[in-house]
Amino acid sequence: MFGQMMDQPLLISSQISFAERFHADVEVVTRTVEGPIHRSTWGEVARRSRRLANALLKMGVREGDRVATIAWNTQRHLELYFAVSGLGAILHTINPRLSPEQLAYVVDHAADEWVFFDTTFVKLAEILAARPKSTVRGFVAMTDEAHRPASSIEGLLVHDTLLEAESDALVWPTFDERTASSLCYTSGTSGHPKGVVYSHRSTVLHSYAVTMTDTLALSAADVTLPVVPMFHVNAWGVPYACAMVGSKLVLPGPGLDGKSLTELVEAEGVTSLLGVPTVWANLLAHLASEGKKLGTVKKVVIGGSACPGTMIEAFEKGHNARVIHAWGMTETSPVGTVNVMLPEHEGMPWSEVLSYKLKQGRPMYGVDLRIVDDEGTELPRDGKASGHLQIRGPWVASGYFRQEGSDTHHDGWFATGDIATLDARGTMQITDRSKDVIKSGGEWISSIDLENAALACPGVQTAAAFGLPHPKWQERPMLVVVRAPGTELTANEVMSFLAGRMPRWWLPDAIEFVEALPIGPTGKVLKRTLRERFAGYVFST
Amino acid sequence: MFGQMMDQPLLISSQISFAERFHADVEVVTRTVEGPIHRSTWGEVARRSRRLANALLKMGVREGDRVATIAWNTQRHLELYFAVSGLGAILHTINPRLSPEQLAYVVDHAADEWVFFDTTFVKLAEILAARPKSTVRGFVAMTDEAHRPASSIEGLLVHDTLLEAESDALVWPTFDERTASSLCYTSGTSGHPKGVVYSHRSTVLHSYAVTMTDTLALSAADVTLPVVPMFHVNAWGVPYACAMVGSKLVLPGPGLDGKSLTELVEAEGVTSLLGVPTVWANLLAHLASEGKKLGTVKKVVIGGSACPGTMIEAFEKGHNARVIHAWGMTETSPVGTVNVMLPEHEGMPWSEVLSYKLKQGRPMYGVDLRIVDDEGTELPRDGKASGHLQIRGPWVASGYFRQEGSDTHHDGWFATGDIATLDARGTMQITDRSKDVIKSGGEWISSIDLENAALACPGVQTAAAFGLPHPKWQERPMLVVVRAPGTELTANEVMSFLAGRMPRWWLPDAIEFVEALPIGPTGKVLKRTLRERFAGYVFST
Repeated sequence: MFGQMMDQPLLISSQISFAERFHADVEVVTRTVEGPIHRSTWGEVARRSRRLANALLKMGVREGDRVATIAWNTQRHLELYFAVSGLGAILHTINPRLSPEQLAYVVDHAADEWVFFDTTFVKLAEILAARPKSTVRGFVAMTDEAHRPASSIEGLLVHDTLLEAESDALVWPTFDERTASSLCYTSGTSGHPKGVVYSHRSTVLHSYAVTMTDTLALSAADVTLPVVPMFHVNAWGVPYACAMVGSKLVLPGPGLDGKSLTELVEAEGVTSLLGVPTVWANLLAHLASEGKKLGTVKKVVIGGSACPGTMIEAFEKGHNARVIHAWGMTETSPVGTVNVMLPEHEGMPWSEVLSYKLKQGRPMYGVDLRIVDDEGTELPRDGKASGHLQIRGPWVASGYFRQEGSDTHHDGWFATGDIATLDARGTMQITDRSKDVIKSGGEWISSIDLENAALACPGVQTAAAFGLPHPKWQERPMLVVVRAPGTELTANEVMSFLAGRMPRWWLPDAIEFVEALPIGPTGKVLKRTLRERFAGYVFST
Repeated sequence: MFGQMMDQPLLISSQISFAERFHADVEVVTRTVEGPIHRSTWGEVARRSRRLANALLKMGVREGDRVATIAWNTQRHLELYFAVSGLGAILHTINPRLSPEQLAYVVDHAADEWVFFDTTFVKLAEILAARPKSTVRGFVAMTDEAHRPASSIEGLLVHDTLLEAESDALVWPTFDERTASSLCYTSGTSGHPKGVVYSHRSTVLHSYAVTMTDTLALSAADVTLPVVPMFHVNAWGVPYACAMVGSKLVLPGPGLDGKSLTELVEAEGVTSLLGVPTVWANLLAHLASEGKKLGTVKKVVIGGSACPGTMIEAFEKGHNARVIHAWGMTETSPVGTVNVMLPEHEGMPWSEVLSYKLKQGRPMYGVDLRIVDDEGTELPRDGKASGHLQIRGPWVASGYFRQEGSDTHHDGWFATGDIATLDARGTMQITDRSKDVIKSGGEWISSIDLENAALACPGVQTAAAFGLPHPKWQERPMLVVVRAPGTELTANEVMSFLAGRMPRWWLPDAIEFVEALPIGPTGKVLKRTLRERFAGYVFST
């Protein structure tokens, strides 16, 4: 027997409609690609989204069609979030840091019909437009007529011109909440990128989850600045959740450097920042060089890759901003776990707080976590045993787009490719990627632990650890270090620093210095490239 | 095209499973019906719920069957919440304050198969058991063998004895999330009570909504004491939401008086209270008489009926506890709106804060609100126009149980029976019940505004306003007052007090003093009874 409750599907259009009805005057502020700061409101975003939807309908966009974006975090991108998904079409956000080959691959694989791009990326659009065979029917520059780029693209449309021709009269269509809403390809460090297809249901449930008090706690009281890009994993769901709660939203456009972000934080009274560690390293360096403090910021959500303790300390002690460490993947919409302190942590000394904050946190209700050994047997949740991390839940991928036999789950669980520990409260700590963990003499050495230890060494700017084949031990660790500018650090000095800080058998067999680490399109160090580069390396011991 | 996300139904069993996996050691504390404080944990509640489910299966309970409870807020009641719904059966919580006739009516109408009851209510159970024709197959006393009540009920079972015979090995079944989970009858001030049937989907979505930062904000950091009864509208969803976030839960059992609540708050370090104004009036009176403060309490959620300003002031200024005023109905699961201050209210003087806090708040994402005139035309959301309040959303009733043609919605909206104003931010203020608003000369006088004005008059303990037929004006207001103990207030004094505080034509045509107001089973003043009692009243003017 069914309950007798109203039958209303969970649709993304209901988020922007809610924003228009109940927080129409709350601001949406963008640092535009054209330069100036643009001030708008959720009410205006809602109206413009409907005009855009009417334009898309005239362009022939129908339910299930893919509309691609190559764009920064801007209001026009936000309008596409609601207009495309609101119609039941699929928003394919493309990472502009993909190589031209990968870019062409994902557009072909997704069979995109339209490509909206920021003028920053006109060259990428031209590469796509010049290809003889393509599903793409046309290109739209996300700007106004005055800023139409000089371009070889035939029939290039302009975002604002499309909107100006349309009315904002539109009733969002109703459809099954399992309908696909957006599409994001994984960064694909090996093989082709794989497409994850989110649904309206998964997006709305994930939005609820990230507004919970014990998670990202997005709120009407916040001024939210997502530095995390809207071109990857829907900016952690922040655009949807902010519409839902009526948070003032500040979009940084292309200005991701420390100076631009600091200006925006100060001018808009930002209270909540979200982004990856590399962005924060730049911001902190800028603030330090200017002797500035993050006055209004109350919390900084850090994810995408593990956040170093020095960064947590810099925000919490140096800027009085609470760090919320979170973990997720493209395949998990993306938020899976969030590190928020529990009542039992009250009064804990800072060193323990810090070591707790280094963990990736606890699952939000909706997802479940477990760790398993190589044979798939569940391991104890004792905070010590480490195993392959698996996750399941209604916002976790069940397969990849257009990839036969790509069921991502085994026994109902998705294998994350991470190595982690879990404790009795569900607190998860990633110790490594399955492919990066260093297997030495039948035991595992965490490349992340090794890197974190090295990062604490004075004179180390950044570092990467990885395993190289070894005749006796299977693998042995190698450490590659980038020196801080103006320092003369030696391998012996690094080794002495590490010596007392880890078991002897964890110590790297070799330390080399490089100018820079190879970085992939989502800001992660490409360890495969390092392993290839040092493939022939002969250990001295 | 569908998204490629895991297909997991939203089921109540997933809440207790989540609690067991990720906050097994968080406490659940009960003031038992037997007397002592009982300490347990979410892990233990989860295990006992599975044992109870195994017992229910042996008792023949199947998906869709109704299992009734007549019980206080206790751990055993909590176990029934998860065990009954977890199996796909329907938990029918009965309000013990119903008259014996209404009690029999709801049990028959629901076709309950089992009745679980607290020993407090053994007489009610005996009345039900003595009836010759009934769907009820048996009765279970919610206690242990040592406290088995002396009773005439044949084959009376005992809750703990049932559990002791069972194992906790059970895998919760999976089924459609729209499956009915629980059933609650409206208080039914006129006509028969009507049954509202919640679903797993509506319950889980509502749980997410009440854990949002800008709503009830239930959290792992809280020690939550729901005084709001589990026998009515699922205690505002608090049991589910606390399982989901891992809040320590403190259940007051039958101890709803000021002294018992104060003891529990102090002993357990309660941070979050939820309940109706009448309970808080008793608590505040007790605290005042003892010269005590609510030390650990940070927030008090008040709903069920409008909260007077004096109560808000007493909590906020006298006890440093933030009041969160909320509104909902049996038909809305129940939470519809929550009053949480917005950024623009910062720095507002206390008098304005107070007048804002008197409003019922803003809708949580998921529900939508509007006000309409008598013809059903939507009225402006300007904070001034008042009209019939309507609501819609996935946790709003679409009809009543076993009642042909009882579609509660018109044009997709549920008519709440309230008169309210809405402002541009969606802030809703109830000005009256549709049936209580006083229609004088074609204009509306809010009975609630009149009562609130009277409550501010020194010497008034409580008051009720209602309309009586009037030959010229259609209706004119009458005010009935209960004097504060030891005062000698006169009608003239009340009238003088009111005179400057409202438009002249709002002033009651008559003021009478009574010993007590008639109160219905959910604690609301029965204005129909008052109108009947004073039906023949002849106005002096």
